[in-house]
Amino acid sequence: MEERREPDYQYTEAEVAQRSRIAATFLSSRASLNEIVTAADNFLVKRFYNIDHNTYLEGEIPAKYKELMGLVISAGLRCDDCINYHIIQSFRLGASRQEQEESLNVALVVGGSIVVPHLRRAYALLAELYPAA
Amino acid sequence: MEERREPDYQYTEAEVAQRSRIAATFLSSRASLNEIVTAADNFLVKRFYNIDHNTYLEGEIPAKYKELMGLVISAGLRCDDCINYHIIQSFRLGASRQEQEESLNVALVVGGSIVVPHLRRAYALLAELYPAA
Amino acid sequence: MEERREPDYQYTEAEVAQRSRIAATFLSSRASLNEIVTAADNFLVKRFYNIDHNTYLEGEIPAKYKELMGLVISAGLRCDDCINYHIIQSFRLGASRQEQEESLNVALVVGGSIVVPHLRRAYALLAELYPAA
Amino acid sequence: MEERREPDYQYTEAEVAQRSRIAATFLSSRASLNEIVTAADNFLVKRFYNIDHNTYLEGEIPAKYKELMGLVISAGLRCDDCINYHIIQSFRLGASRQEQEESLNVALVVGGSIVVPHLRRAYALLAELYPAA
Amino acid sequence: MEERREPDYQYTEAEVAQRSRIAATFLSSRASLNEIVTAADNFLVKRFYNIDHNTYLEGEIPAKYKELMGLVISAGLRCDDCINYHIIQSFRLGASRQEQEESLNVALVVGGSIVVPHLRRAYALLAELYPAA
Amino acid sequence: MEERREPDYQYTEAEVAQRSRIAATFLSSRASLNEIVTAADNFLVKRFYNIDHNTYLEGEIPAKYKELMGLVISAGLRCDDCINYHIIQSFRLGASRQEQEESLNVALVVGGSIVVPHLRRAYALLAELYPAA
Repeated sequence: MEERREPDYQYTEAEVAQRSRIAATFLSSRASLNEIVTAADNFLVKRFYNIDHNTYLEGEIPAKYKELMGLVISAGLRCDDCINYHIIQSFRLGASRQEQEESLNVALVVGGSIVVPHLRRAYALLAELYPAA
Repeated sequence: MEERREPDYQYTEAEVAQRSRIAATFLSSRASLNEIVTAADNFLVKRFYNIDHNTYLEGEIPAKYKELMGLVISAGLRCDDCINYHIIQSFRLGASRQEQEESLNVALVVGGSIVVPHLRRAYALLAELYPAA
Repeated sequence: MEERREPDYQYTEAEVAQRSRIAATFLSSRASLNEIVTAADNFLVKRFYNIDHNTYLEGEIPAKYKELMGLVISAGLRCDDCINYHIIQSFRLGASRQEQEESLNVALVVGGSIVVPHLRRAYALLAELYPAA
Repeated sequence: MEERREPDYQYTEAEVAQRSRIAATFLSSRASLNEIVTAADNFLVKRFYNIDHNTYLEGEIPAKYKELMGLVISAGLRCDDCINYHIIQSFRLGASRQEQEESLNVALVVGGSIVVPHLRRAYALLAELYPAA
Repeated sequence: MEERREPDYQYTEAEVAQRSRIAATFLSSRASLNEIVTAADNFLVKRFYNIDHNTYLEGEIPAKYKELMGLVISAGLRCDDCINYHIIQSFRLGASRQEQEESLNVALVVGGSIVVPHLRRAYALLAELYPAA
Repeated sequence: MEERREPDYQYTEAEVAQRSRIAATFLSSRASLNEIVTAADNFLVKRFYNIDHNTYLEGEIPAKYKELMGLVISAGLRCDDCINYHIIQSFRLGASRQEQEESLNVALVVGGSIVVPHLRRAYALLAELYPAA
């Protein structure tokens, strides 16, 4: 029953895309690939997407922290698309740059230097989303 | 400079060990193995442990959420010892059972059914730490 | 709509447990841990288990081959519990020992020697399920 | 002794490349990189390639299902090149689109949402190989 | 043609087992499981074992360093059996404790804190193999 | 106290970049991304980079072999950027092409065919660094 309220976003995806070229490129390529998946209309894929959506809703843990958790595990599992996605989602929910960096630090210490190439690309996105502190 | 204050624990490790047999077994085996590592006195291992310790201190993100992040990535990377450790740490910092489960849900959806055997063992520990809701 | 018919098992779990001590130990420990998860009654975990169940039903691909696919990916991701589970399920659906070994060979060549310790334990289970060819 | 007959392909690689721009790009880049590896003439690499080739031959399990198993584990281990390769091989051996999707569903549920970015790219290739259902 | 001379071991497996209870337990359980695999007499498994054996022979890189490389990647991929095996092999080829620790440090920094539980168990084995420096 | 002397490089990064277009592209993109990370000046990232640097210094194990170990684990964990980096570092420390290939063979046999796409790209870099044997 819990974990079900949609979060209140401070920015739309379109606003994020306007702030950051990296985000814009990622969001548009993700959207067009998702169209192909949607067209296929696979029953189990749709059910999986549905669970995925529900996992990050407001609950006992605020949605912002859930998205940052998504960032930590994505960086630990070294998935650039997933990292981009959760950085953008966390940004949209008001996460500060410092919170994003602290999350990436958890992934770095747990996942090791193998995470560093992804960390570099993550920082490039952060630099665009949070210009000139 | 940030990320440096020690968190205030609501329970000691000894109190956790008294509540849960699983936790007691884990904590005691971890302690005796850590003694062996400490005795070796390896310079870089000590430096690594130091970074590790600093990563989870109070910062912009409260220590409780950092420990839950540690839980999410540990479950995603499927490390039982790490899962036990971060469940215990989160418990000591006041995380509710619901918060622990929501964190595990992030790991489950991101990491897939390969996480399930670890989830089962995690729930066995949760059942001991949070008896009879 | 497809992928929905329950497969016809040639053996019950109880019959498998009678044939193999390794299977018996695994199935009983899995059952008692699953009880703990079930008691927790977590909404998203239940939904995930539901998708998981549906994935392996009869479809365009016969259930036997789906279970062997589950075996291949479980060995590739090095999860002993998952390997045991899918070997047992494949056995229950009539897979021959040769089919089980060919599946493990795919996992071995794709996953490398890091799979070997799991392969050894898998062969111990196979030796009990398919005695004296 | 078993697992040794070459499968009968319904399509050549050239025919696949003509059907799909994604396949064409992948196959040509793979071929030119393989030339560099072949030129190096490393003894153990050649032996490994030989085992790899033998693993997917006709056996107790038909080659088509072995290639789909290769797809499942490749998606589970998140290797785009390997996913492309096994989708193409399965297509060449007559796998239907539905069989490819059911295989990807096993990888999705076992591997979790971290597989989704690879699933999207896989669906883009499937859309070109199996146009307009 | 290269990479083919058998290395000269300074200790037999039996001598290692006498020095360390952890090694003895590991070696005996590995031997009895390997018997089961050998009895199955699977063609591709045997070929794979053959490549595996050839990989660690004396070559341009001395066998001792190859075994330490095996240790590093085993720790990075978090396989306790593989870690035990390569620590023992390196010991048999004359690696010092310091060389073993430096190798583990590479795995720790590359693989992160997720490696730590395996590091602890590796140090327990090292403590038995190299008593009281 | 040990593991602390800087190695003597036989080539500068600039010299490597002149020999190989692949290396040049990698080194320049890595440098510009590292600038972004450096600008962020994150305390724990800097500490992590410091440990990372110290891990590969001259010690009981010569720096050349440590870099080759870094190559083996990077290939095993399938990180192209890390593979490029350690191939270049090993080259700068005088590793022969044969030593690089023997190291990649350890990664191939331990990591399996999932490593092959990375092996291909590694061989493309090796072909540029060690032209016409």
